[in-house]
Amino acid sequence: MAHDQPIGEASAPLAPAILQEEWLTLSPQERLDRFHRLPWADAEMFFLSLSTHDQAEVVRGLPLAEQRLWMRLLAPDDAADVIQEAPPEERDGLLALLAEPIREEVRGLLAYDEEEAGGLMNPRFAHVRPEMHSREALTALRQQAKKSLDMPYYIYVLDREQRLLGVVSFRELFMASTEASVRDLMQAEVISVAEDQDQESVAAVIAQHDFLAVPVVDQVGRIKGIVTVDDVMDVVREEATEDIQKLAGMQAFDMPYLRTGFGPLLKKRAGWLMVLFLGEMLTATAMGYFEDEIARAVVLALFVPLIISSGGNSGSQAATLVVRAMALGEVRLRDWWRVLRRELGAGLALGAVLGSIGMLRIIVWQLLFHPYGEHWIWVALTVGLALVGVVLWGTLSGSMLPFVMQKFGVDPATSSAPFVATLVDVTGLVIYFTVASVMLRGALL
Amino acid sequence: MAHDQPIGEASAPLAPAILQEEWLTLSPQERLDRFHRLPWADAEMFFLSLSTHDQAEVVRGLPLAEQRLWMRLLAPDDAADVIQEAPPEERDGLLALLAEPIREEVRGLLAYDEEEAGGLMNPRFAHVRPEMHSREALTALRQQAKKSLDMPYYIYVLDREQRLLGVVSFRELFMASTEASVRDLMQAEVISVAEDQDQESVAAVIAQHDFLAVPVVDQVGRIKGIVTVDDVMDVVREEATEDIQKLAGMQAFDMPYLRTGFGPLLKKRAGWLMVLFLGEMLTATAMGYFEDEIARAVVLALFVPLIISSGGNSGSQAATLVVRAMALGEVRLRDWWRVLRRELGAGLALGAVLGSIGMLRIIVWQLLFHPYGEHWIWVALTVGLALVGVVLWGTLSGSMLPFVMQKFGVDPATSSAPFVATLVDVTGLVIYFTVASVMLRGALL
Repeated sequence: MAHDQPIGEASAPLAPAILQEEWLTLSPQERLDRFHRLPWADAEMFFLSLSTHDQAEVVRGLPLAEQRLWMRLLAPDDAADVIQEAPPEERDGLLALLAEPIREEVRGLLAYDEEEAGGLMNPRFAHVRPEMHSREALTALRQQAKKSLDMPYYIYVLDREQRLLGVVSFRELFMASTEASVRDLMQAEVISVAEDQDQESVAAVIAQHDFLAVPVVDQVGRIKGIVTVDDVMDVVREEATEDIQKLAGMQAFDMPYLRTGFGPLLKKRAGWLMVLFLGEMLTATAMGYFEDEIARAVVLALFVPLIISSGGNSGSQAATLVVRAMALGEVRLRDWWRVLRRELGAGLALGAVLGSIGMLRIIVWQLLFHPYGEHWIWVALTVGLALVGVVLWGTLSGSMLPFVMQKFGVDPATSSAPFVATLVDVTGLVIYFTVASVMLRGALL
Repeated sequence: MAHDQPIGEASAPLAPAILQEEWLTLSPQERLDRFHRLPWADAEMFFLSLSTHDQAEVVRGLPLAEQRLWMRLLAPDDAADVIQEAPPEERDGLLALLAEPIREEVRGLLAYDEEEAGGLMNPRFAHVRPEMHSREALTALRQQAKKSLDMPYYIYVLDREQRLLGVVSFRELFMASTEASVRDLMQAEVISVAEDQDQESVAAVIAQHDFLAVPVVDQVGRIKGIVTVDDVMDVVREEATEDIQKLAGMQAFDMPYLRTGFGPLLKKRAGWLMVLFLGEMLTATAMGYFEDEIARAVVLALFVPLIISSGGNSGSQAATLVVRAMALGEVRLRDWWRVLRRELGAGLALGAVLGSIGMLRIIVWQLLFHPYGEHWIWVALTVGLALVGVVLWGTLSGSMLPFVMQKFGVDPATSSAPFVATLVDVTGLVIYFTVASVMLRGALL
């Protein structure tokens, strides 16, 4: 919820700003103590700038008489979010602190999932009737503004059943002649979102059209509330953080790193590490198949980490590129063929670059230190060719896996980069030793 | 720049929406053709919804007479962005298309770096004098609104030298008695940003305070423009994308994946892949030192991929967590000690989990298939212990590297996850073979 008025810095020299810096390092009890010592005006500003999670923590830590004060300071959608942060058994108590009409609004909001438009929206918005004239409309808005309306710059035009007929900007209303009718001023077709629309897609609508707010309507076109750009900005940040964490092979964290308890910290990380570890065990199995080759040509083992990590790195790159492009709506499911063609070229080119460097390294070392025996030229060719194959394979599987995941309804961000790396480690070994057994037959093997 | 009025859907059934879907798949020439065929109202809406890059492409593709039309449709800050997208030799021509007073504004904006507050700001904003009364102020605003003001909900109070004295919300002015003076209504202390402040930190100020806009002031406190929340939303998305791409070991892309030419696509990816490859070559060197051990106990080579990838995965996790927490301001340089302590615990715990699974795997396989010879129990212990060491080391170096990078003024996102993985691959081998040479001395070695 945007503050209706910009908040100035505190008159006490920057106390809240300093507290903001310290806040993370304090225990819950210290936080309450510091919060209590703030002057009223600072405390209000500070409280409103806290995250929903911290607002809930502060409110729940205060004595009952004080809880009411802070809960009533919140806009209905923020109050609903704070109540959702509390354990189920405390929710009715917090709800009861609100004033009667607001309590009903908040109860309505609690019915929605936190991650959809209904859970994000503010049920209050400026509205007028189509038959009003500009002057009447401004008077009506002045009345509505007294009930602490949030952002009165899009004015929604509703019929008696609350159906959305159109929208008019505050500026147009303000500048129109006093006798112009709302019906003539309004735009009749309005982009809106559904109550159960996912918050990420609501954010995309607002971002794409540079809207300040978008109305939420039910199935029969009745307006239920508005989602404002500032709420959506938090969504964009949260979703990016979730994607980044998932891409690195862990579950998304619910809370800032330093605030996550040690237990949850481990749980979020150990799960995927174990899955990847189990997958990676197949490398031991794969290497087992080539144990005889390794015994005869130990030199082959030396390049195993180099080769599989090159496949893993190029696969992670490709997977990350495609996953992010999908999240931003730049690449869709049906683009898989275009992506495949590009990545085929990119994989071959990148493989050729790394393969050449790899061969050059072996040739130079051989000339300087002679470590690779008489068949060194075949070793160099094996490594170079295997690098082309592994990098190409890593790039292709990295770029295609996100499409497969999306096709089957799995979030493509989920651990795809390390998953590709693991996949390519196992298959990369097979590629490497297969190339070796062809190239080195009769020489080393 | 926010549209001052919400834009309705097109009257032609959804033409722009469909074009939006297709846009990515069209060639520049096809785009211009399709754009030309849109009805005027749709074309206007569609043009405004395009990214800066695409707006520049469309404008530059049009005949001169039509260029003027579209350039003049843009708000000054957007016009400046479009001009910055064009090659230097075309910029003066585009600038000349603008109407006289706006041309000067845009020229002023072009002096700023695109990535700082000055390059992001709109030089137009609503302003009043402190001695005005509410009614006079509203009249003044009505005049200013005619010059297509952007968002008239924060009204800035300026003295005759354009110095920022305070701010008043439009709502307060609108609801105040007509005789109330601006000086009494305004808040005297205003949070502002500097002209050269980085866009990421401007975004953080707006996000933290839930502002709709923040004023940009010069060193002597004169207001130069305002940055609005919708401009900043694009910044948040762009910065997240850059971080995600850097974290996966590539340079940040300037353009959407499918729009990036094949040459730039390779260039952005090959650079870091080559650096990582050169680093990873050290694994061949490290394994070379242990060639004798491998020759005597080939079984050791089988677990190399498993062990180094476990270190890499846990290191990437830790690095990503810390980098993202830093970007969100949740972790700062001075928190390194707290992070180190947590990651020490996490690394040991995760290492113990993976080490146990690894040992269990060897024991079970031995009981079923007897592949690891008579000293299998020592092999199991070696692998288990090495896993604890490698995972602990990966976690610690992954969590500390971002602090080192930030300390030396390098963006911690830059390739840190794969860089840690490479570092841990090399050092992990040393840990593994050192543990092996101690544990297996007299048995296998």
